[in-house]
Amino acid sequence: MSMTDFADLSAVYLNASLKRNNADSHTQKLMSKSSKIMEAEGVAVETIHMLDHKIGFGMVTDAVADNEAEADEWPSIQAKIMAADILVIGSPIWLGVKSSLATLAIERLYASSGKKNDKGQYLYYGKTAGCIVTGNEDGVKAVGMELLYAFQHIGFVVPPQADCGWIGEAGPGPSYGDENPDTGKPFGFDNDFTNKNTTIMTWNLMHTARILRDLGGFPDKGNVGADWESVTNAAQF
Amino acid sequence: MSMTDFADLSAVYLNASLKRNNADSHTQKLMSKSSKIMEAEGVAVETIHMLDHKIGFGMVTDAVADNEAEADEWPSIQAKIMAADILVIGSPIWLGVKSSLATLAIERLYASSGKKNDKGQYLYYGKTAGCIVTGNEDGVKAVGMELLYAFQHIGFVVPPQADCGWIGEAGPGPSYGDENPDTGKPFGFDNDFTNKNTTIMTWNLMHTARILRDLGGFPDKGNVGADWESVTNAAQF
Amino acid sequence: MSMTDFADLSAVYLNASLKRNNADSHTQKLMSKSSKIMEAEGVAVETIHMLDHKIGFGMVTDAVADNEAEADEWPSIQAKIMAADILVIGSPIWLGVKSSLATLAIERLYASSGKKNDKGQYLYYGKTAGCIVTGNEDGVKAVGMELLYAFQHIGFVVPPQADCGWIGEAGPGPSYGDENPDTGKPFGFDNDFTNKNTTIMTWNLMHTARILRDLGGFPDKGNVGADWESVTNAAQF
Amino acid sequence: MSMTDFADLSAVYLNASLKRNNADSHTQKLMSKSSKIMEAEGVAVETIHMLDHKIGFGMVTDAVADNEAEADEWPSIQAKIMAADILVIGSPIWLGVKSSLATLAIERLYASSGKKNDKGQYLYYGKTAGCIVTGNEDGVKAVGMELLYAFQHIGFVVPPQADCGWIGEAGPGPSYGDENPDTGKPFGFDNDFTNKNTTIMTWNLMHTARILRDLGGFPDKGNVGADWESVTNAAQF
Repeated sequence: MSMTDFADLSAVYLNASLKRNNADSHTQKLMSKSSKIMEAEGVAVETIHMLDHKIGFGMVTDAVADNEAEADEWPSIQAKIMAADILVIGSPIWLGVKSSLATLAIERLYASSGKKNDKGQYLYYGKTAGCIVTGNEDGVKAVGMELLYAFQHIGFVVPPQADCGWIGEAGPGPSYGDENPDTGKPFGFDNDFTNKNTTIMTWNLMHTARILRDLGGFPDKGNVGADWESVTNAAQF
Repeated sequence: MSMTDFADLSAVYLNASLKRNNADSHTQKLMSKSSKIMEAEGVAVETIHMLDHKIGFGMVTDAVADNEAEADEWPSIQAKIMAADILVIGSPIWLGVKSSLATLAIERLYASSGKKNDKGQYLYYGKTAGCIVTGNEDGVKAVGMELLYAFQHIGFVVPPQADCGWIGEAGPGPSYGDENPDTGKPFGFDNDFTNKNTTIMTWNLMHTARILRDLGGFPDKGNVGADWESVTNAAQF
Repeated sequence: MSMTDFADLSAVYLNASLKRNNADSHTQKLMSKSSKIMEAEGVAVETIHMLDHKIGFGMVTDAVADNEAEADEWPSIQAKIMAADILVIGSPIWLGVKSSLATLAIERLYASSGKKNDKGQYLYYGKTAGCIVTGNEDGVKAVGMELLYAFQHIGFVVPPQADCGWIGEAGPGPSYGDENPDTGKPFGFDNDFTNKNTTIMTWNLMHTARILRDLGGFPDKGNVGADWESVTNAAQF
Repeated sequence: MSMTDFADLSAVYLNASLKRNNADSHTQKLMSKSSKIMEAEGVAVETIHMLDHKIGFGMVTDAVADNEAEADEWPSIQAKIMAADILVIGSPIWLGVKSSLATLAIERLYASSGKKNDKGQYLYYGKTAGCIVTGNEDGVKAVGMELLYAFQHIGFVVPPQADCGWIGEAGPGPSYGDENPDTGKPFGFDNDFTNKNTTIMTWNLMHTARILRDLGGFPDKGNVGADWESVTNAAQF
């Protein structure tokens, strides 16, 4: 396929907002700007609002079976992530860090990270991921550090500038997408920096997914856990 | 070229140790395990010990010309990084975070990040980067979060598991490579986890560099700052 | 009272372990060493295992009333924290950061932080807090940074060395308190660094609580939100 | 003395700006608002601009004697900090984190942290510290986390809300104190949130210093490293 044809790709956008209803989530508003770019380019997008689901706690793959949780809808979310080329987690900022739900999502992804993909690599090899962050105070980069670190650590490729976000000036104030009473327009929607970075992130995720798909996943020499001693390796030196 | 032929690639290993002499740096010992893998696979490696150079402070490209510094050898380091496919920064951990010199390296890289490459993308597009961390207490991941975040934010691709490191059990104790008086062998050298992760990181950096070289850099649709409004973009939605 | 009589003080130890049962929590084992010191010195201690309770998500004080949650036992936990002089949060480390439950605890504390205490100061003024962290890999300090930052930001006094923890050497391995098959003793229990820091943290929390109780809370000039312009203030300069 | 008489106290404000000249430092502008409050209340304040001094790298107390540095003015800065009740570090934000100079300051403080004060406690016991952060993007809290964590870890008391700062809306833009061409006034100077938090932080530092001075330092039971096993301690349980 052409390097800029993305019609066979798919993406999951996971919203870790603390707002009960997705329609109230400011983070969703910025996530939608990204996901709509992907959809316009042919990518199949599914958006999941975490609080619409009962998700169990624990370093387990199934919290009902393994951890006495009353319910756990994570396994079906995990299945969707496994079927997708691209994962985007959106998180609000509270006290400068990612939300408890974003932390929960990473924990549940991590709980499966010891499994292997078809090549024998760790499970998430061959996929790419990014993050979208909003708040009214401060912390876009701090949230990005934790999310992107987790992604790469468990096997995702992190493209150039895989994070984007919006915050206002220091202090409490409007959230992303709130109506500006002076102009009648949503706060942040006309922020060129946020729009540019959101655009670049989205394209970079699509490019990376295209490259990985065309390569048949990430090359597998030297990174298959079981075989690391069969290649040139650190224990030799 | 074959996907596993890396003989045309080059890498810079930048050591942000606070040890005056490279020979005393514990971080260098782990960096060498990674760089020797690359060398064995044909990659041209240059190791730079930051404290061997006078490097100026400031959000400037040349601290002598722009910031009244008495000396500044960063421009020659920057030139070597620009000529390489792969950048690896090694940092010790002090009080849980990366060293002042690692922070300085990121600042100086960042000071040039607004420049463009041949495709009009931000300067570091087309390159890949990872990090190596040692300490005797705690903080490998915290250092990785900051370094890898910075790398991707300014344009590097971060491969799967682009970090590796070693620390001992909680508390003061031996550093990586110190001689274990009980065995006569260096502490950490026989740590399978560290050796495996160092191996995987090194191969993943080589794979990513190979892919980017073969593609002629990172694809440029949607991520050329000046053109972001000419593609499907966030401001449209 | 004497500066070292703590018999009128009380403390809440909140365990944010992902283990369903408190008895399985490695973090609890270290928390108990601290809480037993307090009890031996006369402090009334209550330990709360978060997963024993249904706690709602949301930047709300009552997730049932405010956020459509099915259940929310946080208000009773909040009441216990408000009645105590000392708060200690224990967290495991997963992927280098604090648990989702620790993040949830901070969010719920934060949701009430705009309220005022009897002096008109923000709600948590007059209290002190610390943290206890365990894991088998890395991240004690990273977890401490986030928890202690949050505590001070919402009004707690953070004493000297208000954090303690245990991790093993780099890589997977035994968790704190697991039986060492070679010795029959629990891993970490004989770690002098961990024991010393746990001891110091515990005493520093008791001292700080004693001081604050004897002072009738934290002095209130210049930090009553409503009155900040009536004292010498930043807007004047 | 009265609890609100601070005339016998002293403070060091250490500016870790990357600007060569203090007059160009945006962070200094906010630091000055805090230090002027202290001066108005009688505190003896000394402001130090780190880039006015040659400060050596290394985990050493004297980089000339111990680390082959050509020059090292840190020992005189350290002496001033040791003579003061209050330490405030100001840092700009670059790529979401504190400056290399702020990191250097922490490293040099840490290098002496194993020494003891007159009571046999770690060196910085009896002092208090806070931080001031400015940038035009994002990261006030991330910088605060690292600085305040370091302070408490080495023995400083961290008062309630010991951090303050200013940033603008997401994206590049004016820095704190730059002239707003529309109003002729400096950006950020009229930000109530920043002014209030700066005021509160400053008063809380003065209160904490007053308390510690009146107590003759931080109480010393249980936190004298050499004696930790002589009190009720973690190794007993």
